[in-house]
Amino acid sequence: MRLKLFTLLLTIVPLIGLARQEDSLKIRAIANEILLHGQAYENLRILTKQVGARLTGSPQTYKAEAWGQQALQQAGADRVISQSCLVPHWIRGGKDEAWIAAPGKKNQPLDILALGNTVGTGPKGIQAPVVLVNSFEELEQKKAGLKGKIVFYNYKFNATYVRTFEAYRDAVGYRGSGPSQAARYGAVAVLIRSMSHAADNHPHTGSTRYNDSFPKIPAAAMGLQDADRLAALLEKEPVNVFLKTHGKMLPDTVAHNIIGEITGSEFPDEIITVGGHLDSWDAAEGAHDDGSGCVQSIEILRAFKAIGYKPKRTIRVVLFANEENGLRGGSRYAEEARTKKEKHIFALESDAGGFTPRGFGFTISPELLKKVQGWLPLLKPYGICELEQGGGGSDIGPLYRELGTPLAGLLPDSQRYFDIHHARSDVFEAVNKRELELGAVSMAALIYLVDKYGL
Amino acid sequence: MRLKLFTLLLTIVPLIGLARQEDSLKIRAIANEILLHGQAYENLRILTKQVGARLTGSPQTYKAEAWGQQALQQAGADRVISQSCLVPHWIRGGKDEAWIAAPGKKNQPLDILALGNTVGTGPKGIQAPVVLVNSFEELEQKKAGLKGKIVFYNYKFNATYVRTFEAYRDAVGYRGSGPSQAARYGAVAVLIRSMSHAADNHPHTGSTRYNDSFPKIPAAAMGLQDADRLAALLEKEPVNVFLKTHGKMLPDTVAHNIIGEITGSEFPDEIITVGGHLDSWDAAEGAHDDGSGCVQSIEILRAFKAIGYKPKRTIRVVLFANEENGLRGGSRYAEEARTKKEKHIFALESDAGGFTPRGFGFTISPELLKKVQGWLPLLKPYGICELEQGGGGSDIGPLYRELGTPLAGLLPDSQRYFDIHHARSDVFEAVNKRELELGAVSMAALIYLVDKYGL
Repeated sequence: MRLKLFTLLLTIVPLIGLARQEDSLKIRAIANEILLHGQAYENLRILTKQVGARLTGSPQTYKAEAWGQQALQQAGADRVISQSCLVPHWIRGGKDEAWIAAPGKKNQPLDILALGNTVGTGPKGIQAPVVLVNSFEELEQKKAGLKGKIVFYNYKFNATYVRTFEAYRDAVGYRGSGPSQAARYGAVAVLIRSMSHAADNHPHTGSTRYNDSFPKIPAAAMGLQDADRLAALLEKEPVNVFLKTHGKMLPDTVAHNIIGEITGSEFPDEIITVGGHLDSWDAAEGAHDDGSGCVQSIEILRAFKAIGYKPKRTIRVVLFANEENGLRGGSRYAEEARTKKEKHIFALESDAGGFTPRGFGFTISPELLKKVQGWLPLLKPYGICELEQGGGGSDIGPLYRELGTPLAGLLPDSQRYFDIHHARSDVFEAVNKRELELGAVSMAALIYLVDKYGL
Repeated sequence: MRLKLFTLLLTIVPLIGLARQEDSLKIRAIANEILLHGQAYENLRILTKQVGARLTGSPQTYKAEAWGQQALQQAGADRVISQSCLVPHWIRGGKDEAWIAAPGKKNQPLDILALGNTVGTGPKGIQAPVVLVNSFEELEQKKAGLKGKIVFYNYKFNATYVRTFEAYRDAVGYRGSGPSQAARYGAVAVLIRSMSHAADNHPHTGSTRYNDSFPKIPAAAMGLQDADRLAALLEKEPVNVFLKTHGKMLPDTVAHNIIGEITGSEFPDEIITVGGHLDSWDAAEGAHDDGSGCVQSIEILRAFKAIGYKPKRTIRVVLFANEENGLRGGSRYAEEARTKKEKHIFALESDAGGFTPRGFGFTISPELLKKVQGWLPLLKPYGICELEQGGGGSDIGPLYRELGTPLAGLLPDSQRYFDIHHARSDVFEAVNKRELELGAVSMAALIYLVDKYGL
């Protein structure tokens, strides 16, 4: 028995060794293609500087879709299609304004950005006393005195979370349900401290979700400096704030997922999806969120074609519509996959910024995770050191929920992400070429391995 | 035997478990102190904005030393001393100038920075035809035609090295010995492509070492855009370049290592050194190189004091003098350690930028490396995933060479480092507060473990 096992090992180990060497060389070839001849950075420049902000339903939505189709064609996709879906159409409607109004004194302006999906204040604006709460618990304690007031949620982004996404998950509820929670007790508007560690004063917008049981009230984000200033002032005296916002939800409109494929050479019916979302908030260029994910996904396809690698399975690059304030693109993609009974073996998303990759987070069975973790030595030379349970992406989430597709999300270094997330500072200049490219390299390597060995 | 082992394991494992839990909690307390009440970023702001560039021998050398003493005192050092050493005193001597000189055409300026330790051109400057070489091999091939010419080393920073320090090691020889190699064949000056992936045009200076067998000729760095422009022009036609530099080596002067200690409570004679270097190049603020290493090292001492942690061994924070163009501070420190027969059990340096930490590189025996790698689960929550052989730091190198002290160097994410290294862009604004702090956290955790368990 022992001898047999030994003989078996002698036969298998060199084979594993050879396969690993082949994989290592292939991944090196992909990496060299991306690091030496990469198009991701230039594609991102065009998307951010020539298309710009891409709020769902805005004219740039369609300019971005046309850009995506062209970029996928130039990358060498066998086929480029678009998939239409109904999307919400929220508009900011004008410049948001706010100031601290003290009678007899000069108004002190506050730099605000209305939250996505919110209603406006009306043309006259709203002026009211401000009540600061540091948490939902404090909101409950103060609920009797909120009628006619502006609630200021000053919940701090927790610096002790080493991974900033944990601080985001911890804080984002104030943006999501804070306005309706305040409206429930009669508040007339909401100001919210941005979910960020940034040292600057840019406000960070993002979606809110109204609860239909309560009045819809205007809500806006403030940068950290203004939030601290307002909090300090409130410690000394009562403060009135004036704000004027113009948000408006128009009737649903149509947008598109843009899809480019390499058809699989052996198993064309088995689909591997890789993507990011094409829409962005309106205040910036959506460079990290999520132009980076889009151009990285396109780059994988381009690099495979450029080095002549023919995947066994169909690789689908998807630039999803409407992640930010509706998730309709991702839902539509999964719906069509289910209707057409497509076989989706894996989906990967990059939507955490174009920073140096550190790992991938998976939503996958423990057995498959173990299989994937066996690939770590092949990914480590490119900066990957974490292959762990937990992760995916908003746009590919519906694939898992509808079809049980195994998911993964790229985990880049997260320290700078919430400095610029949903703020004016999310611009092309904040993206580093090599960091962006290394993300694409890691993603391409993972896709290569999933394609070769299946999941 | 088996049963005995089992019993032994039952006894030991819970003890290990308890110790690990205690370590985990202690490191968490250190991390929270640094992430919530950190002074490193503010200290860096003062060093970079109020002291500024700190070329060895410049007036800022002494301003920086005074700053370091004060910062260490404020951090709570039991004792702050300075250790004097003779240092080289190179001055730039004026504004470096260069242009492409084409008779009858307007001069096209080139943005250059003379290399550290170089001689100047004299007040009239030098004008000569340029010979481009892509490598030392090409220099050998062209050696017959170099007399009276300006050699332009256009060796490219290799993008396929994922860790940029490997590209640096690969390319830095052109800066170090390129001028003398060219002088050997009669060249009158050297221009050199900067060792960088930066998309901008800043030249990156750094030390050169003349070989006394050949004439000392002026040498200057060019940014990547100018290097590409000059190379493209040279493909079409002969090019003359004019350059004027003013570098001069003055007689040696005196500078100081600034040292702050916490005296060990159990083994005061066993010393753990942690540091960075206080000097910087003159063109920028030396924020990443190496203001970051200085303020991180001070922060470790501050955090230990702030949470009331009393190390068993003596922790010495050293802000080394003259790393950039002489290494005299590090040599002096090791020399005194040897003379005084000090017992140095470990030395750690941060001199690779204030970016998100990824690991530590060690110069240590395989057995000790294994011991250190056993601590990985305690360091991983703070972003450390690589504990590997190979690493240390220029300033602590002499400790290893003189005394055999085990060394380690912080390995931060390296992608952005050579964008700013030795260039005007190495300023405070390029440092991210949390990334800087996380480096300090990782270093403090490692120092805590070495102090507790020895090496």
